[in-house]
Amino acid sequence: MIKVGIIGATGYAGQELVRIISQHPEAEIVSLTSQSYAGKDYEDVYSNYSHMNYICEEEDIEKMADLCDVIFLALPHGVASKKINDKILRKVKIIDLGADFRLQNLEVYESWYTTHYSKDILPEAVYGLCEINRDKIRGKRIIANPGCYTTCSILSMYPLVKEGLIDNSSIIIDAKSGATGAGRGLSLPNHYCELNESVKAYKIASHRHTPEIEEQLSYAAGEDIVINFTPHLIPMDRGILATCYANLKEMCTYNDIKAVYEKYYGNEYFIRLTKEGTFPETKWVKGSNFVDIGFTVDRRTKRVIVIGAIDNLFKGAAGQAVQNMNILFGLDEKTGIDYVPIFPA
Amino acid sequence: MIKVGIIGATGYAGQELVRIISQHPEAEIVSLTSQSYAGKDYEDVYSNYSHMNYICEEEDIEKMADLCDVIFLALPHGVASKKINDKILRKVKIIDLGADFRLQNLEVYESWYTTHYSKDILPEAVYGLCEINRDKIRGKRIIANPGCYTTCSILSMYPLVKEGLIDNSSIIIDAKSGATGAGRGLSLPNHYCELNESVKAYKIASHRHTPEIEEQLSYAAGEDIVINFTPHLIPMDRGILATCYANLKEMCTYNDIKAVYEKYYGNEYFIRLTKEGTFPETKWVKGSNFVDIGFTVDRRTKRVIVIGAIDNLFKGAAGQAVQNMNILFGLDEKTGIDYVPIFPA
Amino acid sequence: MIKVGIIGATGYAGQELVRIISQHPEAEIVSLTSQSYAGKDYEDVYSNYSHMNYICEEEDIEKMADLCDVIFLALPHGVASKKINDKILRKVKIIDLGADFRLQNLEVYESWYTTHYSKDILPEAVYGLCEINRDKIRGKRIIANPGCYTTCSILSMYPLVKEGLIDNSSIIIDAKSGATGAGRGLSLPNHYCELNESVKAYKIASHRHTPEIEEQLSYAAGEDIVINFTPHLIPMDRGILATCYANLKEMCTYNDIKAVYEKYYGNEYFIRLTKEGTFPETKWVKGSNFVDIGFTVDRRTKRVIVIGAIDNLFKGAAGQAVQNMNILFGLDEKTGIDYVPIFPA
Amino acid sequence: MIKVGIIGATGYAGQELVRIISQHPEAEIVSLTSQSYAGKDYEDVYSNYSHMNYICEEEDIEKMADLCDVIFLALPHGVASKKINDKILRKVKIIDLGADFRLQNLEVYESWYTTHYSKDILPEAVYGLCEINRDKIRGKRIIANPGCYTTCSILSMYPLVKEGLIDNSSIIIDAKSGATGAGRGLSLPNHYCELNESVKAYKIASHRHTPEIEEQLSYAAGEDIVINFTPHLIPMDRGILATCYANLKEMCTYNDIKAVYEKYYGNEYFIRLTKEGTFPETKWVKGSNFVDIGFTVDRRTKRVIVIGAIDNLFKGAAGQAVQNMNILFGLDEKTGIDYVPIFPA
Repeated sequence: MIKVGIIGATGYAGQELVRIISQHPEAEIVSLTSQSYAGKDYEDVYSNYSHMNYICEEEDIEKMADLCDVIFLALPHGVASKKINDKILRKVKIIDLGADFRLQNLEVYESWYTTHYSKDILPEAVYGLCEINRDKIRGKRIIANPGCYTTCSILSMYPLVKEGLIDNSSIIIDAKSGATGAGRGLSLPNHYCELNESVKAYKIASHRHTPEIEEQLSYAAGEDIVINFTPHLIPMDRGILATCYANLKEMCTYNDIKAVYEKYYGNEYFIRLTKEGTFPETKWVKGSNFVDIGFTVDRRTKRVIVIGAIDNLFKGAAGQAVQNMNILFGLDEKTGIDYVPIFPA
Repeated sequence: MIKVGIIGATGYAGQELVRIISQHPEAEIVSLTSQSYAGKDYEDVYSNYSHMNYICEEEDIEKMADLCDVIFLALPHGVASKKINDKILRKVKIIDLGADFRLQNLEVYESWYTTHYSKDILPEAVYGLCEINRDKIRGKRIIANPGCYTTCSILSMYPLVKEGLIDNSSIIIDAKSGATGAGRGLSLPNHYCELNESVKAYKIASHRHTPEIEEQLSYAAGEDIVINFTPHLIPMDRGILATCYANLKEMCTYNDIKAVYEKYYGNEYFIRLTKEGTFPETKWVKGSNFVDIGFTVDRRTKRVIVIGAIDNLFKGAAGQAVQNMNILFGLDEKTGIDYVPIFPA
Repeated sequence: MIKVGIIGATGYAGQELVRIISQHPEAEIVSLTSQSYAGKDYEDVYSNYSHMNYICEEEDIEKMADLCDVIFLALPHGVASKKINDKILRKVKIIDLGADFRLQNLEVYESWYTTHYSKDILPEAVYGLCEINRDKIRGKRIIANPGCYTTCSILSMYPLVKEGLIDNSSIIIDAKSGATGAGRGLSLPNHYCELNESVKAYKIASHRHTPEIEEQLSYAAGEDIVINFTPHLIPMDRGILATCYANLKEMCTYNDIKAVYEKYYGNEYFIRLTKEGTFPETKWVKGSNFVDIGFTVDRRTKRVIVIGAIDNLFKGAAGQAVQNMNILFGLDEKTGIDYVPIFPA
Repeated sequence: MIKVGIIGATGYAGQELVRIISQHPEAEIVSLTSQSYAGKDYEDVYSNYSHMNYICEEEDIEKMADLCDVIFLALPHGVASKKINDKILRKVKIIDLGADFRLQNLEVYESWYTTHYSKDILPEAVYGLCEINRDKIRGKRIIANPGCYTTCSILSMYPLVKEGLIDNSSIIIDAKSGATGAGRGLSLPNHYCELNESVKAYKIASHRHTPEIEEQLSYAAGEDIVINFTPHLIPMDRGILATCYANLKEMCTYNDIKAVYEKYYGNEYFIRLTKEGTFPETKWVKGSNFVDIGFTVDRRTKRVIVIGAIDNLFKGAAGQAVQNMNILFGLDEKTGIDYVPIFPA
């Protein structure tokens, strides 16, 4: 059994990790920590665990590194980079669900986020987008688990960018997320009556997942890509839908596009391409690690429109983190995360 | 008192008309009809009216034309164009909430919709987007009340197109609508558990509001415009948010854009421009005739992003229809539709 | 025009008052205050008001009393009783939306709430349940506007208790409320993802509206009544449904019960009795001052079951407060609050 | 591997069965049928299965009985009783999720439902409420899987009734259910905009789960019990909350009550008693087989109030059906249904 530690176990992503690892046949939680709830029974923080006996511990990453084979960090940005160092990495694998190790371009990181405190570690971190970087992940000590919007956006656009079918300067990603993406921290915009029965865009042209998408798509393209990314908040709990637009370099057919997606994703278990004329809906991936992708070609405007859908807490956070763990420890990648989406829910 | 007839009073838009006219100080309903519920008490169809005594009548537009000063039609497309003729129009003003008289380009209408049955009447119909066509509306016999998505989309983009600030071939409108937009007719996608807790795009690159937006923006531009329009269904009752993207011809500032919007909308009571850095949310216009519009310039991509929000049943249907009535009958345009948005609701 | 002051204008009930008074033909807001947002534009707190120019003022009840004809207080319990005194009441009418003046039994108040700071004023306060106490309200200086659950519960049971048809010791009221009832203050239980898609009971056998219902029903019965009252939180914005159970003293028919309800409510505009076999739903009263009441007799258990529905922010708070104002100032009771319920919303 | 057939696989309960069995380590689906969708790919009915290859077959129960070890029926009442006979039962175990074999009292069944077509089979059917009837289930050929409301209601009240602590004539159960309880069939009340943002009671004093609760509680009491049962529809997908009231024969303490619940449920894995002062919420059991139960004693009214919560599709339907299968086939009762509740979802 893989011994697992979870730091930041009482946020929504952390809790989803606890849930998935609790049911994972090859892993077990040996320690979970919470800054806000240290000392409390986990069931008092999340009553869905009232039949279990987890306790929120004080964080002591050194001690946890001695006890565990892998540590997941689910922390606000800027916090993980202070905790991780070579000494820790010699003892334990790190899978960081935060943003600190996602951007290899330090300057970009510091301009969008804050000072980075593990500059020496950063270069060895691998961006854990499993379907793209699987081979780079194996054997590494530290994995930067991708963001939720980014997972959905990059996977939706990757084949088109990689194959050079589109004008890379024309990419616009209009994304919609459920409220779990905003976390469990209290704020007026996430108060029930404020969020319910309304839709809004937020952090327009300024959301931090923008450079993350850009960096990864730039790798795929072999050139710098700048995009528009606009997140929206939807009155629902889970799910991300990314509606992506790009100008085709040359007009092509649905089947041309399909061939490209099948080239990259045809053998990917967790990526499901929808049938022609049908498109992803977040409900069909809820509670699962699946990424559903569909597309159409608009002959009138010579644009391709790609729709991607994921569960933001699962494939967009905890599920993909476990997928990374499975890769790191040589397990079948599906182990413990192969759920049929739950519906209606 | 203006004598009002409503044909198709038991759909959601029809019911919203009934509600607004019931409370209008200068108008009264003298007849309302419903194909599905003819003969029933209106309160048995909509129990919010249990203190009133409306009855659903069989439709007889000739008779209604004799009794009324204005008739509102809230019918599926293709139905109104069969009912309206010169004889009717000599007796009564017509405000059609359907699509039949919105497109002046007959060929476009017939390619996106169906055969048109009032080709002779079509040329005199005015597109009732009040803030743009106010002067054309006055004195007319038949008004084509704009669609919900189109009202929001056109008003969001109009100043930019009119002033020639953007590359008209780059317009992408990603719109989100609450479920009332889909009407009261039963269908699996609108079954509660299917629509709840999920988001999807639909009619991608094929929604019928596309040519309507294009025709109006083309008039403003003085050239043919083709756009991408992608509607999404949001798990909420009311509201449309349009997120609009366009490439700026030349880089400009927020204040440059603001000046253009103030030029066209500075004196429009029902159009509210949000402060810099804040953006429309559908909750702030619910139950009202307001259109909230905000925008930002993305210097990185040289694009302008405009967000518009309306209540799809109010400004996007019944409210604007009454605004048209007010114009036709020489009333203050705000009469009976000047509601503070209801919140939380 | 009646000059209105509103203290506590930025809570949900306060905002609903602002909305209603803004549209009231015989009243105008001359001052509104907010402890949390003093000095801010009201539109920055509630953007539905971005076309208006209200400003949140510092509270100065003395000054407000000089300027206004009536002051509404929408404050946490225990606060209003410190502000109101004879000097204020000599200058201005007070309508208190809080709990401080609702219970005439001081001992009961202090055991369920806190110390009372206006014991001298309490006896002259009238419980502003308009349909029951209309005659007592006229001419008074201070009105205790009823609670939301209590308005719905008392009106649902009043005729049965007044006429002595039921065993008063058998009354059980199982109530369901939308989330606006919990106010705008941040708390984990009211965080979107915590409240959404779930239902719970809370303050079981301990909710403070219990003694308020008991006191009023006891007056009606002429004897002390003790009840069970269980509130539940429903994932929706507005609305209260009260499901009330009581044992019939003697078996009777639906029509017997109906006769009693018509005796008391037959002429009440804002109380709508549903037809036999149909029952209230909160959606049919939303955004209105209506109370819908329906009932059935269960011959198997010899119980009567009464269902009542209101909009908790309207008839359950701000709407009834304005109804009280209308009575105090000799206006038609419906003035400014006669809205058709808004649906769907 | 247990070979499983599912008849009626395209309703919500049927689909939940497909999901659970798909992930069950000791069972596999060999055939699933649907009257409405025969011949279609299952993924075209439920796109959450687009990575799987189920096909909706025409129903042929004889053939299915030859192929399978157990058949689950998820059909409207009155249908199963026509299909089941001794010949079928000699070949295969039957677990019926419908109502036809739940009531042993034939007269009661026929007065609340319809003619019964398997009167000869009825006596051997066991009411599959696992925690109560575990020993009776083993070895049987046909199990009547309990209804959703009934599972929650009976388990909530059973210890009190069994131990004779309450006045059995005083039981009132006020239940709240999410919309999946109403199934996937289209109807206006379940249309999104009609159900959303509202709450209502329905089938007041006439819901068919009433006699089912009564029959089982009567067995426990050793005397006939008549109750009030009032279901309510809540704007959410999953979950049932039952708020149960009863008069205590003699006043007793929380701990007295607790002792009784622990006597019956202390060793039941799937029944979780909440801590004193906390109460069940449906979100804490979602996607799981757990039944959460909490209670309080109201000294003022001498009543006990018990709150129970389940996931209506899981413990209230498919999960309990699989629990019954596990018992019938000698598996650990938790096999394949031991999920941590999913949250937020």
